[in-house]
Amino acid sequence: MSQPATIDVLGVGNAIVDVLAEAGDDFLTAESIAKGGMTLIDTARATQLYGAMPAGLEMSGGSAANTMAGIASLGGSCAYIGKIANDQLGEVFAHDIRAIGVGFDSKPLIGGEPTARCLILITPDAQRSMNTFLGASSYLSVGDLDIELIRSAKITYLEGYLFDRPEAKAAFFKAAEIAHNAGRKVALTLSDTFCVASHHAEFTKLVAHIDILFANESEAAALTGETGFEASVAALAAKCPVVCVTHGAEGSVIVADGQTYKIPAEPIAQLADTTGAGDLYAAGVLYGITAGLDMATAGRIGSIAAAECIGHVGARPQRPLRALIG
Amino acid sequence: MSQPATIDVLGVGNAIVDVLAEAGDDFLTAESIAKGGMTLIDTARATQLYGAMPAGLEMSGGSAANTMAGIASLGGSCAYIGKIANDQLGEVFAHDIRAIGVGFDSKPLIGGEPTARCLILITPDAQRSMNTFLGASSYLSVGDLDIELIRSAKITYLEGYLFDRPEAKAAFFKAAEIAHNAGRKVALTLSDTFCVASHHAEFTKLVAHIDILFANESEAAALTGETGFEASVAALAAKCPVVCVTHGAEGSVIVADGQTYKIPAEPIAQLADTTGAGDLYAAGVLYGITAGLDMATAGRIGSIAAAECIGHVGARPQRPLRALIG
Repeated sequence: MSQPATIDVLGVGNAIVDVLAEAGDDFLTAESIAKGGMTLIDTARATQLYGAMPAGLEMSGGSAANTMAGIASLGGSCAYIGKIANDQLGEVFAHDIRAIGVGFDSKPLIGGEPTARCLILITPDAQRSMNTFLGASSYLSVGDLDIELIRSAKITYLEGYLFDRPEAKAAFFKAAEIAHNAGRKVALTLSDTFCVASHHAEFTKLVAHIDILFANESEAAALTGETGFEASVAALAAKCPVVCVTHGAEGSVIVADGQTYKIPAEPIAQLADTTGAGDLYAAGVLYGITAGLDMATAGRIGSIAAAECIGHVGARPQRPLRALIG
Repeated sequence: MSQPATIDVLGVGNAIVDVLAEAGDDFLTAESIAKGGMTLIDTARATQLYGAMPAGLEMSGGSAANTMAGIASLGGSCAYIGKIANDQLGEVFAHDIRAIGVGFDSKPLIGGEPTARCLILITPDAQRSMNTFLGASSYLSVGDLDIELIRSAKITYLEGYLFDRPEAKAAFFKAAEIAHNAGRKVALTLSDTFCVASHHAEFTKLVAHIDILFANESEAAALTGETGFEASVAALAAKCPVVCVTHGAEGSVIVADGQTYKIPAEPIAQLADTTGAGDLYAAGVLYGITAGLDMATAGRIGSIAAAECIGHVGARPQRPLRALIG
């Protein structure tokens, strides 16, 4: 019999500092940036694109880290595993995640690449287009897994963006094994269609070890090969006990143990920036599940957290989410 | 006869990246931070205070640099001289100031202290309390002055915060001399009562070389030894051809060549964060003067620029100021 869990959710992902700037559609065209997507960029492109982009602001980001920020803001307890470098942006990342009450003790990469940055262009339609320089963040490996921490978390939440280098892939399978051996659950977000398409066979293998799966419509389609929202959701639900699929302004659908829940989107007063909306949706759902709430309520909290995030620039909550869920 | 000026304003100041976070009054009390002021902090205090403060966001700052950002946003041409280190925050500072169209070619400090940071706590009353780790920024010296750049600017604008180390003081006197020999004007902001009090005799000497002086009520009182707003303004006006003294919510007073202009504050829809309000007031006034506008109009533009700045978090304009001045 395993020990009672001492934290709600442990996130594992790319430790990234976001650089956010507003830009027009003409800038995206001139720089050949696909709107709404995520593109991995190398050092040369990062230097060139940063040089071309408008003045920005820097905020800690990273998909799973944003989700942990959301859970902490809802009142859940969490921790995070991710790789920073020992540089100024690494200090910013570590400070910010600890300051919001998320445990973070991953050892920084020494003498290697710098801390990851995501150059995010926000267009007037509030869409975010992300250009990610992974730097140190992609060097996470099995050695970075804190076994006791994984054992202590009700859910270990894995970020698909990180599922790229062989070392990181091995770390995901290992983390899932440790969690399951301790009687815990494992969650995964597919993160991006490009990630799914690039590693389709291995994602399919990984999903077999996942208890709670997050995806948006395109990612669900990319993994299952289905077209159409409902067919993709159904195909995904056949692979995993709980699937949560977001559907833009229409909200989301959760299928849990055969039951389907349609979750409406929360009305939003102001559409400012969609960066982090999916991360915060996952935060709400994971908070709800670990708090023992029913799936409809967990989904509703996901919608509320996503709506708060969309209303301002930046991917982490700016108001205590706990106060918004009543 | 000198050449026609090719830029409007050249700013010389501390090149700083701001770290902004919201905090309650209890945090200021616990950390013994004087509300509304600027305190210089050393490495140990910077580490301790950063560790204690909430998650933040990073944006380029620096008083004179913010002023240049404001002038550029109004449509004026400007350049900036300030000392960064060759580190990530230095790259952020350099990128942001260039991205808004301000010329910046100062050589970074190599192998010395890191780029300056200002830890800014914003309380619910929108007051900003600044804790500045000067790092590389205070190492500016005569050798960093670009003589041709100074000769090419209608106005060279000096930031009182930088007037601290002997090398920087020498650079200010030298810059004023170069500008005047080229038939240009020199402007100064007193920046902070602490700066004025710490270097009173030398500030008094410097003011004798200044054509346009910016101060708030307390700084005017600190320099002149007068008490009361009107007496301070009158005493300051006796020292300098043009003085611009801000007076909080009441607006400002400009005395130019014996004429007094009372400038009302611009109404503001939302009071979010006063960081940069004085910097942006100076931007509006300097823009007006270099555009050949009358003093009342220049002051009004100062009020408009300050109001835009107070309406959001961060010390640089978030909307093009040009569009706000009609």
